[in-house]
Amino acid sequence: MQFSNRMSHLKASEIRDLLKLTERPEMISFAGGMPAPELFPSEVIRSGMNTVLSEKPEAALQYACTEGYSPLREKIARRMEAKFSARLSGEQILVTSGSQQGLDFTGRLFLDEGSVVLCESPTYLAAINAFRAYMPRFIEIPTDSDGVKPECLEKLLLETDNIRLIYVIPDFQNPTGNSWTMERRKAFMDVIRRFDIPVLEDNPYGELRYEGERLPSLMSMDKKGQIIFTGTFSKILCPGFRLGWVAADADIIRKYALLKQGADLHTAMATQMCINDILEKFDLEGHIRKLQQVYRSRRDIMLDAIAKYLPDQVQASHPQGGLFLWLTLPDGMNARELLEKSLRNNVAFVPGGSFFPNGGHENTLRLNYSYSPDAVIVEGIRRLGEVM
Amino acid sequence: MQFSNRMSHLKASEIRDLLKLTERPEMISFAGGMPAPELFPSEVIRSGMNTVLSEKPEAALQYACTEGYSPLREKIARRMEAKFSARLSGEQILVTSGSQQGLDFTGRLFLDEGSVVLCESPTYLAAINAFRAYMPRFIEIPTDSDGVKPECLEKLLLETDNIRLIYVIPDFQNPTGNSWTMERRKAFMDVIRRFDIPVLEDNPYGELRYEGERLPSLMSMDKKGQIIFTGTFSKILCPGFRLGWVAADADIIRKYALLKQGADLHTAMATQMCINDILEKFDLEGHIRKLQQVYRSRRDIMLDAIAKYLPDQVQASHPQGGLFLWLTLPDGMNARELLEKSLRNNVAFVPGGSFFPNGGHENTLRLNYSYSPDAVIVEGIRRLGEVM
Repeated sequence: MQFSNRMSHLKASEIRDLLKLTERPEMISFAGGMPAPELFPSEVIRSGMNTVLSEKPEAALQYACTEGYSPLREKIARRMEAKFSARLSGEQILVTSGSQQGLDFTGRLFLDEGSVVLCESPTYLAAINAFRAYMPRFIEIPTDSDGVKPECLEKLLLETDNIRLIYVIPDFQNPTGNSWTMERRKAFMDVIRRFDIPVLEDNPYGELRYEGERLPSLMSMDKKGQIIFTGTFSKILCPGFRLGWVAADADIIRKYALLKQGADLHTAMATQMCINDILEKFDLEGHIRKLQQVYRSRRDIMLDAIAKYLPDQVQASHPQGGLFLWLTLPDGMNARELLEKSLRNNVAFVPGGSFFPNGGHENTLRLNYSYSPDAVIVEGIRRLGEVM
Repeated sequence: MQFSNRMSHLKASEIRDLLKLTERPEMISFAGGMPAPELFPSEVIRSGMNTVLSEKPEAALQYACTEGYSPLREKIARRMEAKFSARLSGEQILVTSGSQQGLDFTGRLFLDEGSVVLCESPTYLAAINAFRAYMPRFIEIPTDSDGVKPECLEKLLLETDNIRLIYVIPDFQNPTGNSWTMERRKAFMDVIRRFDIPVLEDNPYGELRYEGERLPSLMSMDKKGQIIFTGTFSKILCPGFRLGWVAADADIIRKYALLKQGADLHTAMATQMCINDILEKFDLEGHIRKLQQVYRSRRDIMLDAIAKYLPDQVQASHPQGGLFLWLTLPDGMNARELLEKSLRNNVAFVPGGSFFPNGGHENTLRLNYSYSPDAVIVEGIRRLGEVM
């Protein structure tokens, strides 16, 4: 059997292989990007599902419209305004099977073999993998803790042929936890509006801010329909439902819908209707405040433990939100080698090199602080310190 | 903005556009492929979901393994043996977001631009659309009501370069309702085993047989791991959960899992665990017998109404199972034109030409008989007769 050319560009995610190792009960894992399961509003979700399957079983269990359940699309549009200052109508929303599906469709919509994707450096590993199925070339935009550097972006846009997509995560980025400053957001928009290239603003973490002032989404600053936005209920409700969305101009959404039709027809109706019910009845904003409180505390506990147990030469990011922080080890230290030792000491993380599509940066690593309870975080960082 | 080359090959499915028209309450629709909603075991599903979300909320709502929920994979493997005589282990099953996703992944795994897909003539419209995203060329294997013609298949395999996939629906095909005879199945296997080309056996309807003897799946006749099988719970339980599977050699399943990881990480866990619970507790086989009974009766009512109300020159297939039957109009009659008139008379169907990837056959059409109650079927065919 002959496989497609794209298969030679794809490899199993290290995070995924790691997650298998980390199923051992004695393992402390800072590797995944999982929310705290004890905070899932499971009773609310159970009750929502019960309502939907009692009151509207024929709609919840039948084939449905590709774009998504209309009342849910409307509610997502209204939340996009409340949370991300982006004024949208329901027809500008496509419900997806998790925001990962939005990444896949974005690659499918814009990329041909050899197309160039500009991305942050580092960037989200699973986005790299999603786009790789379409065989693009990645160019990393020089990035610091304030965001991508606008003058470098401009230079790339002027000098590079065949750029088809700019992919960015301005809020509490995966993997670094860093957010773009207001100044960088403005400068970014000033640069990109002069080019006819779509920008994917991937924003799974924007609502999980623990300190500092809320900053506007790129989409809210967009005057010409250039920004496409992917969002998700995975971090604010639960990932297991696989419920996300793409927000964009209605013309673009119609193209995404065409792709979704061929890919999986539509997202499960029962879960869409359940989330719709929850948005009507549940105090989601109160729930998000609770998540913010717990995750802020876990971040602080992890940062304190890092200061206490890790060598002084290790630098940590100080994320104002999201689920991750980023360590930079002294030059010459290799995080992949460190991981092998640290797995033997029953603590897991993701080596940072995986987040750079063109390689390098092997002295970095990503830590998740949302999943583990306080005492486990401290013990995990202590073990990591032992290994270092 | 520049879109990918593949976008110029994709167009909205006519079925889908039709479904929008058919939302008008006065419309009788034989256009979709929907199961009868009044037969959904909704109380069983509600109770299964309730159990899962009460007893295992943290697993049901968290991120999970890409391949699917292990107990469900095992159960699907056992059902594949009981129902399709294919002996498989759980690791040979990948749970997908509907079997449509299995079609998309199959295109992604095997097809490059210009690759050749051999398919039946006609074949399933949404499979054509799924594969088109990978820009193949379709060659239709000459097909009659007994299945594809083995000698024609052999000739194509010998004379055509760059064939990467053979796509077939041997049981109660969409759109014709026809099934392959035992003789044709054997002859097909005799031909394909001499070529190193994968065969996708798409089998959403196999369990919905209303008469005649059960015939073995191609997969059960495969000695060399050449057959890949897509199955679904959409027709035997409910489509709204989007729960299907791919069955194949474990090595191939690992490649599908790699694709699924980039496409949507995994299928919703709550729905997977709910179906698993249902398979443990519910008499699914008894439920399927009920579906068979109702759908057999609806098929007969539709065939009787066709005999009564449609002109004698119209030929109808006599499906032994599945959801569809196929009309051949006299030469020169055009089903697309007929549809325009018939929508004005409030009855909808799908013109058959859409099911031929290379066009033609405009004097054919597909009718669904599973969705509408008895009296509605009779009235719809009466209206169609009026239009003709």
